[in-house]
Amino acid sequence: MPRHFVTGAAGFVGSTLVDRLLAHGHEVVGYDNLSSGREAFLEGALSNTASFRLEHADTLDACALTAAMRGSDVVWHLQANADVRHGLANPRKDLEQNTLATSNVLEAMRRNGVKDILFASSGSVYGEAMVFPTPEDAPFPVQTSLYGASKLAGEALISAYCEGYGFRGVAFRFVSMLGERYTHGHVYDFVRHLSKDPGTLRVLGDGRQRKGYLYVGDSVEAMLLAWSKMQKGFAVYNIGGEEYSTVLDSIAWISAVMGVSPELTFTGGDRGWAGDNPFIFLDAARIMALGWRPTLTIKEAVGRTVSWLLENPKVLEA
Amino acid sequence: MPRHFVTGAAGFVGSTLVDRLLAHGHEVVGYDNLSSGREAFLEGALSNTASFRLEHADTLDACALTAAMRGSDVVWHLQANADVRHGLANPRKDLEQNTLATSNVLEAMRRNGVKDILFASSGSVYGEAMVFPTPEDAPFPVQTSLYGASKLAGEALISAYCEGYGFRGVAFRFVSMLGERYTHGHVYDFVRHLSKDPGTLRVLGDGRQRKGYLYVGDSVEAMLLAWSKMQKGFAVYNIGGEEYSTVLDSIAWISAVMGVSPELTFTGGDRGWAGDNPFIFLDAARIMALGWRPTLTIKEAVGRTVSWLLENPKVLEA
Repeated sequence: MPRHFVTGAAGFVGSTLVDRLLAHGHEVVGYDNLSSGREAFLEGALSNTASFRLEHADTLDACALTAAMRGSDVVWHLQANADVRHGLANPRKDLEQNTLATSNVLEAMRRNGVKDILFASSGSVYGEAMVFPTPEDAPFPVQTSLYGASKLAGEALISAYCEGYGFRGVAFRFVSMLGERYTHGHVYDFVRHLSKDPGTLRVLGDGRQRKGYLYVGDSVEAMLLAWSKMQKGFAVYNIGGEEYSTVLDSIAWISAVMGVSPELTFTGGDRGWAGDNPFIFLDAARIMALGWRPTLTIKEAVGRTVSWLLENPKVLEA
Repeated sequence: MPRHFVTGAAGFVGSTLVDRLLAHGHEVVGYDNLSSGREAFLEGALSNTASFRLEHADTLDACALTAAMRGSDVVWHLQANADVRHGLANPRKDLEQNTLATSNVLEAMRRNGVKDILFASSGSVYGEAMVFPTPEDAPFPVQTSLYGASKLAGEALISAYCEGYGFRGVAFRFVSMLGERYTHGHVYDFVRHLSKDPGTLRVLGDGRQRKGYLYVGDSVEAMLLAWSKMQKGFAVYNIGGEEYSTVLDSIAWISAVMGVSPELTFTGGDRGWAGDNPFIFLDAARIMALGWRPTLTIKEAVGRTVSWLLENPKVLEA
């Protein structure tokens, strides 16, 4: 059984992946600075002391990273600055936490002789796409956000390491994820607000932004499938379902689960924030050709997310 | 008249641009750490003390950069790690000198309220292109070199600053340049070797690598034209001619100018080094639509380069 090294292991996606890897009987080393990840998400994993250990350290600490990775066979690089919206308030953050951290991971791999890396990129690398659904080989896009730029740079570094050092790499361009352990994004914001004030809701933009969403459990299955099919060189997979929804759809679904009917106000404009894209819809034919399909609709994924948040009020207090 | 700030001002392209800007009556601040640039290339510019000054400092020194840029209106960011071939020997170098330096330039602009940036990117961002000649909106490429990856990251940062902070940006994806003040690349290597040993020549790869080349004076005219047409947002221009040539063509032209007939040996394979691309040929229809055309053929550009190198033997001694 290979030993997996997971950065961002205590995060939303990371902890879900860790649990799935452990369930399959793999050994896992988690790496997380717990700045936005939560040790509580790894409660189950940490009880499996034979197969799991958590290193509490930062990917910007190249020494700690290199030491922790020793003996691993596969790297899942999921750590990132997940605060997509506020890149403009601190423009170095995306560069450091997404691009430089990825460079550190690649160098730690080189020092440890680890050659397989799977990377959590993002559909935001397509900027304002011109083709919908957007395939992996869409026309060379223009970046609209520092987050997308920093993720594209991470992808580019990995593919150059594949070419130059014989690494095998996979980049996943995800749509937005939903599900248990979801702790940021519009569903979180809305549920949090409506728990306190069920009568009103302020919406960024005009609420008509259309985006693909995917249940985190489905994402992790896609990731494991892509890992099992890894080949020489660098591969990119869009990870998303065959539908998209609007923010207004989400609000309707959230309100139904919560039993509320808030009065909506809108900040206006066709996007939620500078660098946001009003339409994100990825063509996932490539991963589907390997046999993957989402098991939940967006509506079901939103429902599960809301239920989980309501069952875990501590998460909403953070 | 606007004041121009030119990073890499003492380099091959930078010094050529500085001379042209001064000839047009502009004020210019040059910024160069003189690690590969040469003060001698700015001899003429430095004599124009009314319109030109050179700041001898590093783009990784954010404080010096910010201070030097004060009062400038336009930034030409040409400084880069120009050592395309040896990225794998020191994989942080491209990241630091191309990506982080670009981030520093953008932050210095933000602090100084400068909003216009023109950036020397590279045709290497197309990796192994699948369309020839390659247009700016070619299918989303896979990066094959750390150099290309770091330049793509620089482009992405600039476009995100255009979107987020209202900057205006232009990225030039250049083919290889030739001409006076050329100090690295295969023509330099060949002339240098043949000056000492005219009887033999060792060629990286099989000599059949096909690449576009352009006279540096023609490149600078294209850059000035694109600057004069700058609009809101981010624009990309391929800068290259309508022809390409092989390394064997270059050798024949160089040999003719030098009057030598070396016996060739080949390292073999279809590329010169790991991450090299055997075919680079850009579609420059976008810049040509603005009225630009190259004035020299590749053969003429090689000829001028060889003549200049032979007239400047000190450059070959470096």
